Amino acid sequence: MNRYGHMMAKKSVRDALRLDEVDLSTLDPAGRPVGPQSKKEAAEDLVATGAELDDLQEALYAENSRAVLLVLQGMDTSGKGGVVRHVMGLVNPQGVRIASFKKPTAAELRHHYLWRIRRVLPEKGRLGAFDRSHYEDVLVPKVERLITAAELRTRYKEINTFERELADSGITLIKCFLHISPEVQKERLLARLDDPRKNWKYNPADIDVRSKWSKYQGAYTQALKNCRDTPWYAIPSDRKWYRNWTISRLLLETLREMDPKFPPPAYDLEAEKARLVNNDPLR
Amino acid sequence: MNRYGHMMAKKSVRDALRLDEVDLSTLDPAGRPVGPQSKKEAAEDLVATGAELDDLQEALYAENSRAVLLVLQGMDTSGKGGVVRHVMGLVNPQGVRIASFKKPTAAELRHHYLWRIRRVLPEKGRLGAFDRSHYEDVLVPKVERLITAAELRTRYKEINTFERELADSGITLIKCFLHISPEVQKERLLARLDDPRKNWKYNPADIDVRSKWSKYQGAYTQALKNCRDTPWYAIPSDRKWYRNWTISRLLLETLREMDPKFPPPAYDLEAEKARLVNNDPLR
Repeated sequence: MNRYGHMMAKKSVRDALRLDEVDLSTLDPAGRPVGPQSKKEAAEDLVATGAELDDLQEALYAENSRAVLLVLQGMDTSGKGGVVRHVMGLVNPQGVRIASFKKPTAAELRHHYLWRIRRVLPEKGRLGAFDRSHYEDVLVPKVERLITAAELRTRYKEINTFERELADSGITLIKCFLHISPEVQKERLLARLDDPRKNWKYNPADIDVRSKWSKYQGAYTQALKNCRDTPWYAIPSDRKWYRNWTISRLLLETLREMDPKFPPPAYDLEAEKARLVNNDPLR
Repeated sequence: MNRYGHMMAKKSVRDALRLDEVDLSTLDPAGRPVGPQSKKEAAEDLVATGAELDDLQEALYAENSRAVLLVLQGMDTSGKGGVVRHVMGLVNPQGVRIASFKKPTAAELRHHYLWRIRRVLPEKGRLGAFDRSHYEDVLVPKVERLITAAELRTRYKEINTFERELADSGITLIKCFLHISPEVQKERLLARLDDPRKNWKYNPADIDVRSKWSKYQGAYTQALKNCRDTPWYAIPSDRKWYRNWTISRLLLETLREMDPKFPPPAYDLEAEKARLVNNDPLR
């Protein structure tokens, strides 16, 4: 037990979910390979994790030298937006930077595909989250055959280089593949059609993408295999509560390891107290 | 009682706190002119307000045509950061845009003072918050005599024009002056010196600014008087819980009046259901 009093997973979530062999067909999207087995237990733990995350994030912000970037990838309805709401929502919004990447605009297409990504990297001290990312540029083009195999290989290499560059600049990446089953996607798409408050989230093109499920799984497999100089985590995402719990713990383990420190005062503490107490200009 | 079951202030917070005559000396920074009189009551209400704000903000996001921008101004320690944490933290971070303005950089100074402001305006559908704002450019220059009286008058006019332009473009401003007493500022500055986790928030220059308290109150009075084509709200901020409550209610009243709507589907609902149920490509 640490001072927050919540459970410590026997095995770290990072060790349990890090993708070594990339074979999506052997991964159970409804699995719970580590941590709580019930929604109730996960909810309790999330409260304590939130409190600790909030403290660590404040120290990261105060330290002002490093950053964390959560990269969220997954099929439609896999829960990228849900993670932003339920996990990033645990900490002070002042230190959070959310960016989401949709189909590139005409202006974005006039640049290298990493251009729009670099523009919204989290500044020092921030906790960033990408809802989709540069990985879209090795998924859609492969499925839709928009670029050649050689161009695709170039992109994989560029992405590895780019991510090493981020690490060198003090940005720790946490790359999450939100893994869902086609059955759960169907349920969630139907829910978007059935609830008037969710209709706006549905796009008829979602079914066109769904029809290419196995091609996308193949494109993910290639991307995850070829771009893992920085590790990927496979998040079983058929259960929303398990998905949120695992990602909150990945963030927590990462921030604990980074161990950000509140900086010591860059001024003379006693002299400043004296100025305020003995020489208060407004006495 | 509305469907959220929480108290409705008899008088709206906007009506109670809108600054008509700008005479800061008659305003009590520890006052509670409207709403809850105890911390406990305010905390309970904040939970219900948070739930309704979250719903309204989701509709604003889905509607994707208008935005809200909370402008936070006030002396050091008046609680601008606290409002961001406790009020903006009530809603989904995906729809939130926080910007804070520090002393202008060399690059920013090579532009008109509104340049850096325009770059970070909230996009459609977002709830923005400015921790300090373009008002710094009519406060510091006046106190420090960096510009002439004529230049200052020009800036007041420019700001009124700019804010009308924002309204025309669908951005509703909520301008809050966080009003604290010099005694409470002293307590809070001492707390920053006494707590090692808060030392980083303290800057020796804060006391230099404090020593010009009455000059700053004068500069605020002029700015608030001359730039109220869009109204200002004076927030009694000696009590943190009252400050957070009032601003959460200003946001709530504003969003209720805007009454954002989830857009109707831009596709044929039944046809899409049929595609997914009868013709599911993954059957």
